[in-house]
Amino acid sequence: MELWYTENHSKEAKFSIKVEKQLYSGQSDFQRMDVFESNEFGRFFTLDGLVMITEKDEFIYHDMIVHVPMATNPKIRNVLVIGAGDGGTVRELTRYAHLENIDMVEIDQMVVDICREYFPNSTSGLDDERVHLYFEDGLKFVQEKKNAYDLIIVDSTDPIGPGEGLFTREFYKNCYEALTEDGILVNQHESPFYEEYQRAMKRSHKRIHEFFPVARVYQVHIPTYASGHWLFGFASKSLDPVKDLKEEWWNSLGLETGYYNTDIHSAAFALPNYVKKLLQEAVEE
Amino acid sequence: MELWYTENHSKEAKFSIKVEKQLYSGQSDFQRMDVFESNEFGRFFTLDGLVMITEKDEFIYHDMIVHVPMATNPKIRNVLVIGAGDGGTVRELTRYAHLENIDMVEIDQMVVDICREYFPNSTSGLDDERVHLYFEDGLKFVQEKKNAYDLIIVDSTDPIGPGEGLFTREFYKNCYEALTEDGILVNQHESPFYEEYQRAMKRSHKRIHEFFPVARVYQVHIPTYASGHWLFGFASKSLDPVKDLKEEWWNSLGLETGYYNTDIHSAAFALPNYVKKLLQEAVEE
Repeated sequence: MELWYTENHSKEAKFSIKVEKQLYSGQSDFQRMDVFESNEFGRFFTLDGLVMITEKDEFIYHDMIVHVPMATNPKIRNVLVIGAGDGGTVRELTRYAHLENIDMVEIDQMVVDICREYFPNSTSGLDDERVHLYFEDGLKFVQEKKNAYDLIIVDSTDPIGPGEGLFTREFYKNCYEALTEDGILVNQHESPFYEEYQRAMKRSHKRIHEFFPVARVYQVHIPTYASGHWLFGFASKSLDPVKDLKEEWWNSLGLETGYYNTDIHSAAFALPNYVKKLLQEAVEE
Repeated sequence: MELWYTENHSKEAKFSIKVEKQLYSGQSDFQRMDVFESNEFGRFFTLDGLVMITEKDEFIYHDMIVHVPMATNPKIRNVLVIGAGDGGTVRELTRYAHLENIDMVEIDQMVVDICREYFPNSTSGLDDERVHLYFEDGLKFVQEKKNAYDLIIVDSTDPIGPGEGLFTREFYKNCYEALTEDGILVNQHESPFYEEYQRAMKRSHKRIHEFFPVARVYQVHIPTYASGHWLFGFASKSLDPVKDLKEEWWNSLGLETGYYNTDIHSAAFALPNYVKKLLQEAVEE
């Protein structure tokens, strides 16, 4: 027999992975979750039928969501992570000895429980003593914080289901207020290629742009996400991710990374013309 | 009914496109060719079951294989294109008024005939008076040329079937000899992610590196190719694609492009650590 997992990247394009076996399937109060074993990607985790992480390429996503802001501001001490139940973002953050506090707010505790069981590598930072887990709605959590965090990372699902609130105007405004003077907001920013993802990308950029003086977008090659062309947003009150990159400082830390380096840091902010045009349209709409 | 085209990106990962109808299917002396109509990608063309071009994203491939070398050396006048039967590479070249001669050598005339019929946009440059078509083996064609071309573009299929000879030591050596003093060789350089493509990437880099003092690799987001993470090789006798980029000159030409710009030109040469490591291994093997 053959068992194939299939994900629709658009209504008329789909991606399939041959599966050795399904290791877990369950339903939380928020979403369906599955864990599969495959030869090509190792174990992989899906939420509502969309790939969140695979053992083979999760390093790409987590390198680029964490090291880009961290290399821009060496003074970051207090970090808020929203979503990120698979643990990979926190794992990368805990590699920085100078960080003092990492609050992680995940709405769905079951995501963390399942990932702890099946993905020991990606969840390996969750027991670091600087990490505090809150199983709450990130939208509400951030609302109560003012001038509190140097960095907020929004490591969310797509803007349908439990991730929806993390793409709203209100949320971005609250993030702005929760950030310190040189505060940085990095978010999972969808993809420019397929129409539905493109709409989400434009909406997110439009809204972030309303509140943050610096609102830039950077791109990454993530083969298991729709089109393989994925984006993150970098917004801040003052710092520019390219001009303010602390190249020498970051390289002096000696962190080994599979994707990120300080050359690719700056390069990721150079966008193709068609993507620049879409982002410009979003701002002007 | 539903009709789906499926391509294996690896033995255990595949990509499928919903097809409205098959417009053409045939067999030449060299390969099978098919043309499909789809909603998501418009028309698309396959050789031996692998996507060559789609109307939706062919601009990405052709922008990046042509404008990167052209923006590096304004003195290019005489160009050799090998493969490229869909015409897209020649179309982009013909936009440069200062080019004097473009020789295109495609082993399989049927590719050009079929693409002329079904892809009028991508083949629109083939009747330019500076373009000379040769339906011959590129390997033999280049063997007889010495100090003749300022730029050679190898726009080949993968190194199986008719494209195989275009990945050999002998071929790269002949390209070196066919190039003028500041000559540039750009080639389709496969992909770093899936094992089979990764092997082809390493082999190509190893061999080019043996003959050319400058042998660099650059990356592009091409959603319809395996993993979406695609590479081109830039090799030359003297010019460096980043240091020698003629940014002002190229921008003064006023060419409109969907993907390429002079920022992404330099950025594309910043590679992820895991890709740099694979290329380094290739050279040391």
